[in-house]
Amino acid sequence: MEPKFIKEKIEKLGRLFTQGMHLSDFLLTWDRSDEEIAAVFTTAEILRGLRRNNLSARFFDSGLAISIFRDNSTRTRFSFASAANFLGLALQDLDEGKSQIAHGETVRETANMVSFMADVIGIRDDMYIGRGNAYMREVAAAVQQGYEAGILEQRPTLVNLQCDLDHPTQSMSDMLHLIHRFDGIENLKGKKIAISWAYSPSYGKPLSVPQGVVGLMTRFGMDVVLAHPPGYEIMPEVEAVAEKNAQSSGGTFHKTSSMSEAFKDADIVYPKSWAPFAAMKRRTALYGEKDMAGIKALEKELLTQNAEFKEWECTENLMKNTRDGKALYMHCLPADITGVSCRAGEVAASVFDRYRDPLYAQAGCKPYIVAAIIFLARFGDPAAKLFHRLQEGRMRVW
Amino acid sequence: MEPKFIKEKIEKLGRLFTQGMHLSDFLLTWDRSDEEIAAVFTTAEILRGLRRNNLSARFFDSGLAISIFRDNSTRTRFSFASAANFLGLALQDLDEGKSQIAHGETVRETANMVSFMADVIGIRDDMYIGRGNAYMREVAAAVQQGYEAGILEQRPTLVNLQCDLDHPTQSMSDMLHLIHRFDGIENLKGKKIAISWAYSPSYGKPLSVPQGVVGLMTRFGMDVVLAHPPGYEIMPEVEAVAEKNAQSSGGTFHKTSSMSEAFKDADIVYPKSWAPFAAMKRRTALYGEKDMAGIKALEKELLTQNAEFKEWECTENLMKNTRDGKALYMHCLPADITGVSCRAGEVAASVFDRYRDPLYAQAGCKPYIVAAIIFLARFGDPAAKLFHRLQEGRMRVW
Amino acid sequence: MEPKFIKEKIEKLGRLFTQGMHLSDFLLTWDRSDEEIAAVFTTAEILRGLRRNNLSARFFDSGLAISIFRDNSTRTRFSFASAANFLGLALQDLDEGKSQIAHGETVRETANMVSFMADVIGIRDDMYIGRGNAYMREVAAAVQQGYEAGILEQRPTLVNLQCDLDHPTQSMSDMLHLIHRFDGIENLKGKKIAISWAYSPSYGKPLSVPQGVVGLMTRFGMDVVLAHPPGYEIMPEVEAVAEKNAQSSGGTFHKTSSMSEAFKDADIVYPKSWAPFAAMKRRTALYGEKDMAGIKALEKELLTQNAEFKEWECTENLMKNTRDGKALYMHCLPADITGVSCRAGEVAASVFDRYRDPLYAQAGCKPYIVAAIIFLARFGDPAAKLFHRLQEGRMRVW
Repeated sequence: MEPKFIKEKIEKLGRLFTQGMHLSDFLLTWDRSDEEIAAVFTTAEILRGLRRNNLSARFFDSGLAISIFRDNSTRTRFSFASAANFLGLALQDLDEGKSQIAHGETVRETANMVSFMADVIGIRDDMYIGRGNAYMREVAAAVQQGYEAGILEQRPTLVNLQCDLDHPTQSMSDMLHLIHRFDGIENLKGKKIAISWAYSPSYGKPLSVPQGVVGLMTRFGMDVVLAHPPGYEIMPEVEAVAEKNAQSSGGTFHKTSSMSEAFKDADIVYPKSWAPFAAMKRRTALYGEKDMAGIKALEKELLTQNAEFKEWECTENLMKNTRDGKALYMHCLPADITGVSCRAGEVAASVFDRYRDPLYAQAGCKPYIVAAIIFLARFGDPAAKLFHRLQEGRMRVW
Repeated sequence: MEPKFIKEKIEKLGRLFTQGMHLSDFLLTWDRSDEEIAAVFTTAEILRGLRRNNLSARFFDSGLAISIFRDNSTRTRFSFASAANFLGLALQDLDEGKSQIAHGETVRETANMVSFMADVIGIRDDMYIGRGNAYMREVAAAVQQGYEAGILEQRPTLVNLQCDLDHPTQSMSDMLHLIHRFDGIENLKGKKIAISWAYSPSYGKPLSVPQGVVGLMTRFGMDVVLAHPPGYEIMPEVEAVAEKNAQSSGGTFHKTSSMSEAFKDADIVYPKSWAPFAAMKRRTALYGEKDMAGIKALEKELLTQNAEFKEWECTENLMKNTRDGKALYMHCLPADITGVSCRAGEVAASVFDRYRDPLYAQAGCKPYIVAAIIFLARFGDPAAKLFHRLQEGRMRVW
Repeated sequence: MEPKFIKEKIEKLGRLFTQGMHLSDFLLTWDRSDEEIAAVFTTAEILRGLRRNNLSARFFDSGLAISIFRDNSTRTRFSFASAANFLGLALQDLDEGKSQIAHGETVRETANMVSFMADVIGIRDDMYIGRGNAYMREVAAAVQQGYEAGILEQRPTLVNLQCDLDHPTQSMSDMLHLIHRFDGIENLKGKKIAISWAYSPSYGKPLSVPQGVVGLMTRFGMDVVLAHPPGYEIMPEVEAVAEKNAQSSGGTFHKTSSMSEAFKDADIVYPKSWAPFAAMKRRTALYGEKDMAGIKALEKELLTQNAEFKEWECTENLMKNTRDGKALYMHCLPADITGVSCRAGEVAASVFDRYRDPLYAQAGCKPYIVAAIIFLARFGDPAAKLFHRLQEGRMRVW
């Protein structure tokens, strides 16, 4: 991207109303206005443009970005690390195993204890329905309270790195990828995107990926279809969000229990395994009772249930039914690839292979999305700051 | 804090004799002169002032702060990380599980191997009486030797992040908190502080917290009372330090085996569980013999012994007997809160709740105390450096 | 080192042809030209000179250095961390246990996922013959592909932090140490160096240390002798490299099965345990079949085999036969020291003790070797960059 285009993007950002993001947490895309969502995309593009022109986005001389990962992560962990570093923040991971959390410490206490010099806190907590987002809000309330009581000198802002409801940095990376692929957000109007359940031999994948996608993609006038076998419903409140979004944006939101119907003439397909909502609620209850044997039994039951739907695989045949047989295949990665990472999985190896480059590019949006969210949360005058950096010309690598 | 007051603090720092701290380790508060202790408080305040005025305390363009944690930690780990980052140092943790220490490596060797580019080493080693401080001195001797032999280009300075004898960054944070609460160190003269053992259902909490507190608080003319049930003595050498301190400072140091006597008319109370010294010595011996079964048996014995003193709890009734019923309640956190983190613990939930904000503020002093210790160890002209930064106006966040 | 000498070194560097290193991986010393090897030594010296003069080598305002350690490490881990920090890069460790690698992720995918903002990737993978270097090349191919497809904005360069074939940062640190001790590379011509197997009670030490040493040391006209008991052969392809090197450099490369013959009149001795090549090949095969019981059995067999050669110890008597009884003793550390870290080991305690300072100095070269490799890989005009920094005078510690 040439500096001229970066400047245009900054001017565009300057026309968006982003005051609501300043010093505010980013927990759910559907809590955010259209202008705010647009500002994230625009800022992500500007930051990428700076980097491509070897300009530094270091706006912090010092400062900490705290990460709390309650589930394994590669992409999101490195995206958060990359974004923090690009802005000048040092990453400090709260490894709960090495902390004193087991030793009588409450969420409220830990949240304050790690935040004395923290500018940002990124959290992944996606394992239990009804828990992850609640935990984030508990942390947010704790640091707010700490800030108001004068305990914290700054109120660190929270970034949802995946919860039980939403995975905003994922869905926004997905969307930014679509904006690139279709050469502008305006070209997505009327496009059909199929978010479909797919078979996986593993168990309990978070619902927040499909939820995040239908909760966001319905905002841009697309025809969004959600497909899954009976029993694999997503959370009803997110479906409600999607329906409302579709109405306001002039798009549609439909459900079907046929993968091939969903794929029919689709411009974009996003086949991905997830756990059944009802079962996940039972799992949370079992977890609350520390009934680990019950969780084991549930897991077995769910794997059997999954196995009934092995034909829900993104095959070449299904792809042929998409628009001109050339729908864009998406996945948040890692995918369960038939014959590669498992015997039978979400996607045929030949389909996956053909889309490998776009899939990686999709993932490559995430560091910039995270950086944009942090940037907009910490700076009240984002356009002015970025414009100044562009003029100043401070280099990333000397 | 306004820049004018920061300037005054810097002038005050400039009048203190701190040459003895330069390039020197901070292992025990009682190894340090009164002026040096005062310099730590003053520098901590200045650094906090800089940060509150969005000024950077980055004095290192690069450099490493090595941490070695031989026990779990949240507060101290994040304090050390925050302090290092605020000064411009990157944290590098020596995770002994991932190193080759098991593979025939001596303390002397490891100390040098991690120090080729290290400016600071922070160590927590508080698990075994007679071991922690000795280990720190072994590391200190090793890097000294390495420096003198020309192996190390700089001699990293050590910061005691808790040993078996002292927990200086904790006790100094506690003291800085008191200075804030009582509006100046001079107002602490004659105040009564009760450091009392309290019941906990857990086992083997370090003695270094109460030891650090009596070893430091006796220096400021306070009436320091140490209370514990029979058998819960702290180390006699630290009691001797406290007695000597009390004499020179014009304060007092008393012991009692009654919690309520200690609390009577106290201005400040610090009820906290710790392990009995004699038992901890046995534990070290068992550990030396790798007698893990013996350690298990001892643990059981100690839990039984603890359980005899369940009434040693900081209750509302006890608080009523303090000065005007309003003594300041202190704790290093996390506390064992009755009905919250355990069935019966160190403190009643209502007492803890009432003091939550001051408790968190107490903990919030630690990053600045750590930063001040590092700063005074690395710079021979601290006041000049800080004054220059104040004038220069380099920002933390641009 | 005075600035004048740094300037001379920079001029020397400017005369070396280093274009082949720019944006290129450093995997094996024998893939590198003599001028490139010389450039690493020279750059390491310059960087050390900058640091000794309190000059900053921060050439990155932001950027990530990714580390992947598939084996324990202290020295190499801290060397990589130190080098990255000295140049301005933040370390981000890929802890495979915390990532989603188990969850169907391929090497190609992970390599791209961690590299969106990575400038360097350092890898240790030395556990299985035929695997480590191959893994590095797989990662290299993956990021190359990602870069060419426009997925990665920069192609991170790889640094081999030890594989099954070579341990280049070790052997080059060893060599830099020799350059210091013998006061210049030209004085090493005709010197005799004995790389000898030595007994260890442990099992399966990597062959890449002796291989790295014979593969590098034969390039400088030295008389290189490799000694080991029957059955402890190193990989034949590395012997071939050593033979070819010796011919071109005017040195020699001999093998012997007598430690005392190897030590006879040696100027330098490097006694060190390693595993037998043939057994390590069997081990890789067993690992491929996930035959953990087979690996256990092999381990037992190898320990028995080792025990036949307990007399292969670097004793005072053996040292007496070296040149004037004063050969330089080298080791990559940690060593198995008889009576210290084990009952019987690689070296007598009195020998080790006498050489402790040089051994630590040897290890102290590694951070600079790593930094030099990174620097030469990232900057196409290294001499100009360094000269500019010398003139500019940017300080490391203000």
